[in-house]
Amino acid sequence: MFERLRSGFWSWLPVTLSNGLTTVGLLAMILGTSPAVGEPWHRLLFGIVIVVWGLIAMESIVGFWMAPAAPGRHAYLASAEGLIDLSAAFALPIGWLVASAPGDALLFALIWSLRYIRHTSGLTLFWRIMKRSRTPLLSIASLFAVVFLTAATLAYVFERNAQPEAFGSVPRAMWWAIATLTTTGYGDLMPATGWGRLLAGWVMVGGIVMFALQAGIIATAFAEELQRRHFLNTWDLVTAVPFFQGLGAAAIADVVRLLSAREVAEGTIVVRVGEPGDAMYFIVSGEVTIHLTSGSLKLGPGQFFGEMALLFATRRSATVTTTKPSVLLVLDIADFRELAGRRPEVVNLIEIEGKRRRAANAATARF
Amino acid sequence: MFERLRSGFWSWLPVTLSNGLTTVGLLAMILGTSPAVGEPWHRLLFGIVIVVWGLIAMESIVGFWMAPAAPGRHAYLASAEGLIDLSAAFALPIGWLVASAPGDALLFALIWSLRYIRHTSGLTLFWRIMKRSRTPLLSIASLFAVVFLTAATLAYVFERNAQPEAFGSVPRAMWWAIATLTTTGYGDLMPATGWGRLLAGWVMVGGIVMFALQAGIIATAFAEELQRRHFLNTWDLVTAVPFFQGLGAAAIADVVRLLSAREVAEGTIVVRVGEPGDAMYFIVSGEVTIHLTSGSLKLGPGQFFGEMALLFATRRSATVTTTKPSVLLVLDIADFRELAGRRPEVVNLIEIEGKRRRAANAATARF
Amino acid sequence: MFERLRSGFWSWLPVTLSNGLTTVGLLAMILGTSPAVGEPWHRLLFGIVIVVWGLIAMESIVGFWMAPAAPGRHAYLASAEGLIDLSAAFALPIGWLVASAPGDALLFALIWSLRYIRHTSGLTLFWRIMKRSRTPLLSIASLFAVVFLTAATLAYVFERNAQPEAFGSVPRAMWWAIATLTTTGYGDLMPATGWGRLLAGWVMVGGIVMFALQAGIIATAFAEELQRRHFLNTWDLVTAVPFFQGLGAAAIADVVRLLSAREVAEGTIVVRVGEPGDAMYFIVSGEVTIHLTSGSLKLGPGQFFGEMALLFATRRSATVTTTKPSVLLVLDIADFRELAGRRPEVVNLIEIEGKRRRAANAATARF
Amino acid sequence: MFERLRSGFWSWLPVTLSNGLTTVGLLAMILGTSPAVGEPWHRLLFGIVIVVWGLIAMESIVGFWMAPAAPGRHAYLASAEGLIDLSAAFALPIGWLVASAPGDALLFALIWSLRYIRHTSGLTLFWRIMKRSRTPLLSIASLFAVVFLTAATLAYVFERNAQPEAFGSVPRAMWWAIATLTTTGYGDLMPATGWGRLLAGWVMVGGIVMFALQAGIIATAFAEELQRRHFLNTWDLVTAVPFFQGLGAAAIADVVRLLSAREVAEGTIVVRVGEPGDAMYFIVSGEVTIHLTSGSLKLGPGQFFGEMALLFATRRSATVTTTKPSVLLVLDIADFRELAGRRPEVVNLIEIEGKRRRAANAATARF
Repeated sequence: MFERLRSGFWSWLPVTLSNGLTTVGLLAMILGTSPAVGEPWHRLLFGIVIVVWGLIAMESIVGFWMAPAAPGRHAYLASAEGLIDLSAAFALPIGWLVASAPGDALLFALIWSLRYIRHTSGLTLFWRIMKRSRTPLLSIASLFAVVFLTAATLAYVFERNAQPEAFGSVPRAMWWAIATLTTTGYGDLMPATGWGRLLAGWVMVGGIVMFALQAGIIATAFAEELQRRHFLNTWDLVTAVPFFQGLGAAAIADVVRLLSAREVAEGTIVVRVGEPGDAMYFIVSGEVTIHLTSGSLKLGPGQFFGEMALLFATRRSATVTTTKPSVLLVLDIADFRELAGRRPEVVNLIEIEGKRRRAANAATARF
Repeated sequence: MFERLRSGFWSWLPVTLSNGLTTVGLLAMILGTSPAVGEPWHRLLFGIVIVVWGLIAMESIVGFWMAPAAPGRHAYLASAEGLIDLSAAFALPIGWLVASAPGDALLFALIWSLRYIRHTSGLTLFWRIMKRSRTPLLSIASLFAVVFLTAATLAYVFERNAQPEAFGSVPRAMWWAIATLTTTGYGDLMPATGWGRLLAGWVMVGGIVMFALQAGIIATAFAEELQRRHFLNTWDLVTAVPFFQGLGAAAIADVVRLLSAREVAEGTIVVRVGEPGDAMYFIVSGEVTIHLTSGSLKLGPGQFFGEMALLFATRRSATVTTTKPSVLLVLDIADFRELAGRRPEVVNLIEIEGKRRRAANAATARF
Repeated sequence: MFERLRSGFWSWLPVTLSNGLTTVGLLAMILGTSPAVGEPWHRLLFGIVIVVWGLIAMESIVGFWMAPAAPGRHAYLASAEGLIDLSAAFALPIGWLVASAPGDALLFALIWSLRYIRHTSGLTLFWRIMKRSRTPLLSIASLFAVVFLTAATLAYVFERNAQPEAFGSVPRAMWWAIATLTTTGYGDLMPATGWGRLLAGWVMVGGIVMFALQAGIIATAFAEELQRRHFLNTWDLVTAVPFFQGLGAAAIADVVRLLSAREVAEGTIVVRVGEPGDAMYFIVSGEVTIHLTSGSLKLGPGQFFGEMALLFATRRSATVTTTKPSVLLVLDIADFRELAGRRPEVVNLIEIEGKRRRAANAATARF
Repeated sequence: MFERLRSGFWSWLPVTLSNGLTTVGLLAMILGTSPAVGEPWHRLLFGIVIVVWGLIAMESIVGFWMAPAAPGRHAYLASAEGLIDLSAAFALPIGWLVASAPGDALLFALIWSLRYIRHTSGLTLFWRIMKRSRTPLLSIASLFAVVFLTAATLAYVFERNAQPEAFGSVPRAMWWAIATLTTTGYGDLMPATGWGRLLAGWVMVGGIVMFALQAGIIATAFAEELQRRHFLNTWDLVTAVPFFQGLGAAAIADVVRLLSAREVAEGTIVVRVGEPGDAMYFIVSGEVTIHLTSGSLKLGPGQFFGEMALLFATRRSATVTTTKPSVLLVLDIADFRELAGRRPEVVNLIEIEGKRRRAANAATARF
């Protein structure tokens, strides 16, 4: 999970534009189905859908053209992103071929909504979670099937005489069972007999229990998967910082768990003078400038700043801004204290190195 | 999370008064909208709202006046608390300017309800949680958008012929989709065809799964954030106690995790003679008196009490009361045993120090 | 959490009888309110309620009489158990004094339902959980208040013209808001305007998010509290076993976390010959007999059995039954392997001690 | 939890066929209850049910015949699997004996749905979870009983005058209470008075809180039980690999927690040349072939592969396929790094052993 806090405006632009385009296209399609919309408006909405389609198709072609050479364009088309781009581009043409009424063709623009998922890391995430918790989820699904079928059959047996229209067959009772098991409770079908109501009470409670179980499984798998991602992404960044390379593998594993990455645009104020110090920062790439009263220092990849406020529990003594787009590793104050407890040698190193670098930098700046 | 257990009455008074004032004002506004309320009562309710407004405005001005000098009044107005105070004070005047009907102006008193949040630490908490779990929440929101749009479009396709009034456009089908996805199930719109009902079943189950995922994400982030707060608050208190300052950073980090802070008003009975001993206490600030049969001892900041019952698994041998408003650090019996396992040197120190201090105190008391 | 697995029949009898009595009394009271019940049956139900009342009152008096001397009867009356007994005994008399209609007096028997909680450890558990997570729960409650009031006021503004009867005042809109926020969705009140429906969608989603947050808080506190109880209860039992007393505090803390207590009635088969060995047992109190082909051995408090199947991954070589009511500490095979990893010295001790005791016992048995 | 990822087609066939058979039989039974189904179709469905019954009965007999000799056929019948097979075979005959109408006999085929559970490990899982969290679940059930009875009785008291038909007795009010506590909200019964609505609001919120508590308990117990299973299953596989047998018990316990088992069919591509390396593999049983450009190597039980990509963070240098059905232990890259931190000696061993084996294998292959 690569955090993009206080990131620059321009890095967000492509995603925002792409999602905005999708939203405009889908809104036009949705409003176009309303009979309350008059003819001239209808034509306008149709025009918007067509224009959005053109832009989406263009975006897909550009994406295909710019696919990196290494895995190749073939790999791009086989990837989830490529498939979404492709199906978004061909959604309307397929609609025109398949749909019986001309208005219905536009409904295929629904496929564009997949483009929302394309820009999040959600796609692979959900896939891994499902794979990881396959066994318990299958157990729950089996249990659900048994409870659902039993509820519907018993409701049919109890209610068929009292309400021959509503509960006259098991398929009809299944419609009641699903709305009750999920506690949706439409209220169109309801048991009228004593036994039916007793059954309904158990079905409601059973439904909550089963969905609680399933929620627990998914949430646990989700939390584990997010932690795994964070560990892998942060590891790559941490081992790129020379300062950490001197540490042993065990110390690095501890450090990785405590750090979090942050992409920062050029010209962002990372630390403001006089504020309480709640974190220190390691520079993975880019450059920051420390604005001291006596002048300013520049720090580059591999260096760190903001440790003084943590070590001596003081307020920030200088403002720090990025002078290039940078990737920083953030060590929160709570995690810094945790690190001081578990790896005192790392914190000592930070203290010594910090003093040395400041002195060296100051000496350089003087001349 | 600074726990205020068994805290004094007076320390709660400002918050209780302020929330009570908000509640009275909101109740008067709410009842005032009821057509069942007669004219004389209506005037009374209007009067109450005006009086409450005056008090709230006064409270805001006092808050602005008393803002600490260091970050200054400018910082107060920019803070969340300042903004809430300001908007609460100007809610009614803005209402009179904006509202078309005179009665509607009072509805702006709704903004006062933000004052409930002002007094809890919830405001910054929720902000940090949202920031922390932004990435997975965005993934879920994207997925929700896809499922929601698909459900509405398919419901429109399946049901538009059977129920042209209820499902005659995608926007109308969206009203059904949201009530079904959240398992609210109003029951005003419902699929009537077989395919529509099959879709409805999947939408209900899908809604539960997605909200389970999101619940898991939020709950995990919440638990982590609370733990972080507890660590930071307790750290500051623990390092203020001389007894702990002799320990290494690793031991302090372990101790911080096991202790919890408690504000105690003057004259509170902390420990009662004869009760089973379930905790020991370290004094951060204030003063306590131990009522022994042979007289009484006073303990001040940096000292501790209640350790005998834990060490020898006996009942309390003396009653202990606070003689000044005090802040105590509590070590629960379960955590004490955990500490004895992980940091035997700390428990040894507690035993030795306890004996020494008692002897010294007793000697002092004798003369 | 003191586990009563495979416990004897007689130890459950008092609780079962007491809960059965409560259930009979409550059922009679509930059925007595039904107008469909004829006069003779009505008299019978009334008679049952009176008889149950007599027995419950008697039970309370016996409980008061048998209160242990140490904290005294005064303490019993002040305890939660005593208060429940007292109010159960006086429920009907107070009903006769207070109720206007004679039939309504019996409704006070509802207080008997508190007796269900009396027999579980739930009462103190819930109290501790609420105390522990007070701060975050108050934050959520404040947030809930803000969202609830905002939803009701906005619904009133959006819908009062379209549905003057249903949404004619804020109090009426509050009835809609609570049913929607909790996703109950009765369907009696519903927004009809576009803005009202948009609001309703957000209210449904917001309700799920808030209740997810609150569920996460309570569930986390519950899990922690259960773990604390298990640790405290098991600690007392573990330190009563001489075998563990030789271990250091750190090893005991590790062992306590892995063991779980089990009360076993006389004559229960704990281990059956030929079954796969999934646990070993330490005897806290009582006596067990090992039925070997060559005769039988008796083991008493402080001894252990079942370790052979874990050490050598074989099936059980003998059946073991209790010859007195016993309290055993169970070490599951997964936890045994965990212990072998973290505390190899303990597992070595088990191996050596086990061999020595078997030899000694066998020598004794031979003569 | 024995993971069957990328497993062969044939190993899934029996379970798929058996579940498919069950589904066909149940569908035929369900559709047979619909009055919309005409006579000829009805006969066809009846025929399908009978044929499925025959096949299910045959499967049960075969299962009984093939029961392993060790615990014997007697043990099979007493096991959960045996009981499900037996009751599935006798479901219809019992139906014909018991049912009053001939069509109703087929409803007993519902018992076949238990066969879905038979093939998952869910059956024993749920049993263990219920046993493990018995105490807190009983506490919740008691609390639920108190809240449910109180809600119903108070609703009866508040509403009996306003709605004598709907809330005329406590049993009727119970029907409202269960639908509201579970937030199903059918909307057939609803409080009309102010007090009744206030009660309803608290009941909705209380229901959500209680089910949140219960969800938390079940989900926690589920997660712990799954972890225990994974530990036990993986332990047996890990200790079967000679490479790990040289490690101490503590190191094995750490390794077991990080590995996960995978059954792989013959001819499966485990690792593909050029892909990023995200895991390494230990062979428990079976055989794999490494396809190098210079030829191919065969690895058997106890050997490992895929470690180069992890050690040097490179892409896969060779494709690896299974040449026999194999059981592999997978070490994910995140877990590999964790292991490098906690057990550097194991990772060193992997590095040394890997180099030695490659050299030896290459030498063997050359001649």
